[in-house]
Amino acid sequence: MHVLVLGAGQLARMMSLAGAPLNIEISAYDVSSEHIVHPLTQTVIGKGLENAIANADVITAEFEHIPHDVLETCEQSGKFLPSSEAIKAGGDRRIEKALLDTAAVRNAKYHIINTRDDFYNAIESVGVPMVLKSALGGYDGKGQWRLKDASQADAIWAEMEECITATDNQAIVAEEFVPFSREVSLVGVRGKDGSVAVYPLAENIHTNGVLSLSTAISDLELQAQAEEMFTAVANTLNYVGVLTLELFDVEGTLLVNEIAPRVHNSGHWTQQGAETCQFENHLRAVCGLPLGSTKLIRETAMINILGEDTLPQAVLEMDGCHIHWYGKEKRQGRKMGHINVCGDYSGELQRRLCALAGVLDKPAFPAVHEFAENFSSSN
Amino acid sequence: MHVLVLGAGQLARMMSLAGAPLNIEISAYDVSSEHIVHPLTQTVIGKGLENAIANADVITAEFEHIPHDVLETCEQSGKFLPSSEAIKAGGDRRIEKALLDTAAVRNAKYHIINTRDDFYNAIESVGVPMVLKSALGGYDGKGQWRLKDASQADAIWAEMEECITATDNQAIVAEEFVPFSREVSLVGVRGKDGSVAVYPLAENIHTNGVLSLSTAISDLELQAQAEEMFTAVANTLNYVGVLTLELFDVEGTLLVNEIAPRVHNSGHWTQQGAETCQFENHLRAVCGLPLGSTKLIRETAMINILGEDTLPQAVLEMDGCHIHWYGKEKRQGRKMGHINVCGDYSGELQRRLCALAGVLDKPAFPAVHEFAENFSSSN
Repeated sequence: MHVLVLGAGQLARMMSLAGAPLNIEISAYDVSSEHIVHPLTQTVIGKGLENAIANADVITAEFEHIPHDVLETCEQSGKFLPSSEAIKAGGDRRIEKALLDTAAVRNAKYHIINTRDDFYNAIESVGVPMVLKSALGGYDGKGQWRLKDASQADAIWAEMEECITATDNQAIVAEEFVPFSREVSLVGVRGKDGSVAVYPLAENIHTNGVLSLSTAISDLELQAQAEEMFTAVANTLNYVGVLTLELFDVEGTLLVNEIAPRVHNSGHWTQQGAETCQFENHLRAVCGLPLGSTKLIRETAMINILGEDTLPQAVLEMDGCHIHWYGKEKRQGRKMGHINVCGDYSGELQRRLCALAGVLDKPAFPAVHEFAENFSSSN
Repeated sequence: MHVLVLGAGQLARMMSLAGAPLNIEISAYDVSSEHIVHPLTQTVIGKGLENAIANADVITAEFEHIPHDVLETCEQSGKFLPSSEAIKAGGDRRIEKALLDTAAVRNAKYHIINTRDDFYNAIESVGVPMVLKSALGGYDGKGQWRLKDASQADAIWAEMEECITATDNQAIVAEEFVPFSREVSLVGVRGKDGSVAVYPLAENIHTNGVLSLSTAISDLELQAQAEEMFTAVANTLNYVGVLTLELFDVEGTLLVNEIAPRVHNSGHWTQQGAETCQFENHLRAVCGLPLGSTKLIRETAMINILGEDTLPQAVLEMDGCHIHWYGKEKRQGRKMGHINVCGDYSGELQRRLCALAGVLDKPAFPAVHEFAENFSSSN
């Protein structure tokens, strides 16, 4: 079985590693260079979308910001999963919000802004404080504003207008501010036969808008809510593959913040912590194979490595720590790899996170240090 | 870090999969074609040993039957680990037996046969029943004979003589028959700093001379014996990397049968069952990184897939089953892949092996069926 992935980054790379044992071969299509590459070696093995499609049994994607003509060509081949509709919902905040409404899953009240008048109407209907997000292209905290008070509207509008005019078909989605107590995400998978399996929720800590620490949690009540929401969204899209819901936990009630129609950074912990990792399960789904068990096998947390290309040797020495580098060149703030940390008995994971805080640089790994400080002050 | 592996089979492939997350890149040198290939894709990326060596930081091997000129060239580069001495000990039964004697680890009494007279002397000194093994090139049950009674000597000598004359520097090693109750193996790793870590022993079932089922076992007394033997052999060789001891268990006393100076089929279970798999630990050792924990994390067994290129879908559906295909073309009896089966609580692994016997073909997976029959008759 040969799977083509749109996008040649770390997610395609990890699909390649997970697919090999199942004899699923992965090639990756770099949308900007139009090269077909091997996602592990980055060797160029061909050029052009038509060639890439011709050699693939199945086509899928590792990101949602894909030009629509590329998506349409893939869809027309009859090989593309999940679907261009799902990818577009992940790449356009307007479509995403409409989808969440159609699927009848809780999400923040919103208003779409194309003009200054729309902005004033949004302030009226959504209220302040308000979160403003570009409809296209925003991720990892980029293209976002907060309006705390209506008096700031003029200043923010200048930036928003610049954003709207800079990109074709751009808009801003205004959303009510949700006073969430934490951010969690649900990674799940839906098969061709409509079967659904979800992983345990992960609690996510972001630093400067970028995920920095993600820990699998056990909360039966939240899990049930999230699973219901997942099933509603996935069924509405007739989705096939791994799908991620980013959720706000508002004192025990979940709201969907965003969806990601793909394997997700907050699911990397599954490589060590779940019976079947998200990469294998995505491939199983799109290849029409039975889904693998999503059961937790060990308490696990994931620490993102941002902008660093070396780690202290003590991390390699530490029991239950697994480093995953992405083979990328160092660049400030770039996702270079992650560390999965496991614990076998109650408290061991927390103890290991504290030990990691002792060896990892605080400026580069603030979330681990914050965890350790909170943990030691509460114990 | 770039590691060159002599040999481009499944062991190099699995090293490649285990190395990628550590940013360790693997290329493989196919000794017969002289091609340098990527062990996962089998893409040819160069030609010639000198080129292969020039591009490598470290050189290692996935098999022991390597021409001596290739070994010498690698050794002279100063990059080769474990060492040509260790590889030769794995590839020549005479050197192996001398090594075991030097390391003072228990092994079967033996006599080396070059001539018919040697054979008669062997019968005298070693006694019957006797096992006869070619010094070079024998593996998976090939190049072996059993002499049950001295009256068979003439008939067997004809075959042995043919074997001796067919290959340069060939000989036969006669060994006393060891009335072992089972075969076990110890996979361990030794670092550049002399540190040693061993995995739990595996109990091995062979079918027609080929490993078919390997199960990690817990036996403190045997484990201690095996670890001591491992350390003696590894220290004698000043070994760096993963080394495997194949052992006979004679009512609680272990004898070393063979050594394999490499990752080993009986260590494939570590991919799911140990904190760090044997492939990662081999790479850690030869790259001078700290060794990873060899701790058992789940009860695990490995089933070899021999000569089959498909499996019933029920295997993919079964919890705790992980299939590892090697991407090879089907050939009768060929090692095509393996299944790792895990259990989380006492008895679960055994129950899953029985369930697998219900879906796997008996002629192709006799050891699993035999296990299930014995298990059901003893429970």
